[in-house]
Amino acid sequence: MKTIFSPVQLAHDPKHEISDGMLKPAVEIPSRAEIVRSRILETGLGEILPPEEFGLDPLARVHAADYLTFLESFWERWTNAGRSGEAFPFVWPVRELRTSPVPDHIDGLLGRYSFDAGTPLGEETWFAARASADAALTAAKLVAGGERAAFALCRPPGHHAHGGFYGGYCFLNNAAIAAQWLRDAGAEKVAVLDVDYHHGNGTQAIFYDRSDVLFLSLHADPLEEYPYFLGHADETGEGAGEGFNVNFPLPLGTDWAGWSTALKAAADRISRFAPDTLVVSLGLDAFERDPISKFRLTSEDFLRLGEELAGFGLPTVFVMEGGYAVDALGVNCVNVLSAFDGKA
Amino acid sequence: MKTIFSPVQLAHDPKHEISDGMLKPAVEIPSRAEIVRSRILETGLGEILPPEEFGLDPLARVHAADYLTFLESFWERWTNAGRSGEAFPFVWPVRELRTSPVPDHIDGLLGRYSFDAGTPLGEETWFAARASADAALTAAKLVAGGERAAFALCRPPGHHAHGGFYGGYCFLNNAAIAAQWLRDAGAEKVAVLDVDYHHGNGTQAIFYDRSDVLFLSLHADPLEEYPYFLGHADETGEGAGEGFNVNFPLPLGTDWAGWSTALKAAADRISRFAPDTLVVSLGLDAFERDPISKFRLTSEDFLRLGEELAGFGLPTVFVMEGGYAVDALGVNCVNVLSAFDGKA
Ligand SMILES: [Zn+2]
Ligand SMILES: [Zn+2]
Repeated sequence: MKTIFSPVQLAHDPKHEISDGMLKPAVEIPSRAEIVRSRILETGLGEILPPEEFGLDPLARVHAADYLTFLESFWERWTNAGRSGEAFPFVWPVRELRTSPVPDHIDGLLGRYSFDAGTPLGEETWFAARASADAALTAAKLVAGGERAAFALCRPPGHHAHGGFYGGYCFLNNAAIAAQWLRDAGAEKVAVLDVDYHHGNGTQAIFYDRSDVLFLSLHADPLEEYPYFLGHADETGEGAGEGFNVNFPLPLGTDWAGWSTALKAAADRISRFAPDTLVVSLGLDAFERDPISKFRLTSEDFLRLGEELAGFGLPTVFVMEGGYAVDALGVNCVNVLSAFDGKA
Repeated sequence: MKTIFSPVQLAHDPKHEISDGMLKPAVEIPSRAEIVRSRILETGLGEILPPEEFGLDPLARVHAADYLTFLESFWERWTNAGRSGEAFPFVWPVRELRTSPVPDHIDGLLGRYSFDAGTPLGEETWFAARASADAALTAAKLVAGGERAAFALCRPPGHHAHGGFYGGYCFLNNAAIAAQWLRDAGAEKVAVLDVDYHHGNGTQAIFYDRSDVLFLSLHADPLEEYPYFLGHADETGEGAGEGFNVNFPLPLGTDWAGWSTALKAAADRISRFAPDTLVVSLGLDAFERDPISKFRLTSEDFLRLGEELAGFGLPTVFVMEGGYAVDALGVNCVNVLSAFDGKA
């Protein structure tokens, strides 16, 4: 299959992140994309194409206008405030606090448009995130145009980004943007299957009240793992969306046996939904050696995942999400894709 | 007047805080209390007494039981999780995310029970915060027993702490705990006047739907200053509390002229309310040289503040809040208190 990737995506190059109460080296780094690209070239998976530029409209179908304006204008505001380097929010409008009026101060804005302290926002973030979203959109367009599958080598990732705020290394929700674009391009039903180790809280929230986009996520139980505050099994959708959100929270330590059981249940639900197109939020952090995760999938298991996904028999847009064992990320990611293509 | 203080309050001794996206030296530090104590001894303001121990009941009148359990059990959970040193949350349940079920993981708990990333929580925090609340309660008891005024040398401060979560260097809302205790001890009406540079968001939220506790706050406009998400003029209370919450957001750069105009309006409202007792959330960070604040009160202005407060003619419980120009904090704080006593 074809891969979509732009070097502009590498421009978001965070140095640090805040986690466990400390300033630590960033883990969502450009080399994540580079190692996947290298592995694609090495294995001959297929052509690597640059993304088309889709402009702001497809982003605004999923994200709030004021949030996009914040991301776009952030660096100017940050530097006008005399700041430099990457930005971290430090106060948030949780319950009993207000989201409106929106503060004028840059630190207030950062908290207003985010939900965590671990996601550095820098000078190039907006451009890299847009290129990443364009990669997802271009892959969606290829599939809408008749390709069996395409791979958006997205980075920064997207599935933690809500319609109106960022977090979890995610700014624009690439998978949601692609799914919405597919709907707008004529697909009546789209399924988004999120296989990242972490719950796809942003994607869920974006489609929570809709029956035209089925969202399914296999992930570590949020009682025990980030994002902690969404991803439970009782989140089944609301309003018209009731029954169109399916979470599979799994215990820490889950291996292929447990994980593939949930995958089979997800496959059944997708089959009943009978979507026109499938979007896969392809996180690779369920890997046994992932430094921030606690599942036990092996590199071979990612081959099986690719075979299973091919068995769904659907036009499929792959959108990369997380995965932080950088040395193995290329192998694991391309294992899924090449097995899907029947080449592994 | 008498001062209430316990050396246990010094045990909360944070090393760092996260602000502006960096790990910086903590500013809410034990020397804040020590310099005020020294100045009290130097000026002969009055006796310094240790707090009585009031136990958990008066705290539970203001704070949620699960929040108190979290604070009490935090250090054991933190160390059981293999962590050490001071803790910082890094992800929060903002809108679209859930506060229930409460996560099991310590990082989830930290976010569930906080609203900022800048408030270090350590081994001794619970004990120091309880001693600080006991100081406020003991001062309230002295005043309920007939003293014209008493000073709780509270530290850690309290006014940013909500009923169910911490932040802004605050864990237990000392002023709210004192106000509620006064109500329970027989006062029919209590006014809480918050003169800290920052909005007293926690105190406001705790009494927002009640007419028996009038809350008034003079502070920097939250559009421009922490806590950003509460403290606007249109927050006037709700339900039975409608009309019993009064905010005076003031522009950055406000000096005594502007500040005292708001104080006079607050005094009028308090006079109409005719409380049995006044609780003053005495922050000293409206000071012109405060390192994190942007008002322009001088040390002499704090004398005038003490005179104005004395002019209210009410039994008054002073509860210390913020103030980070440590070298001047003793002078500024005791200026208010000694002028109140007519001794300055
Ligand atoms: Zn992940
Ligand atoms: Zn303050």
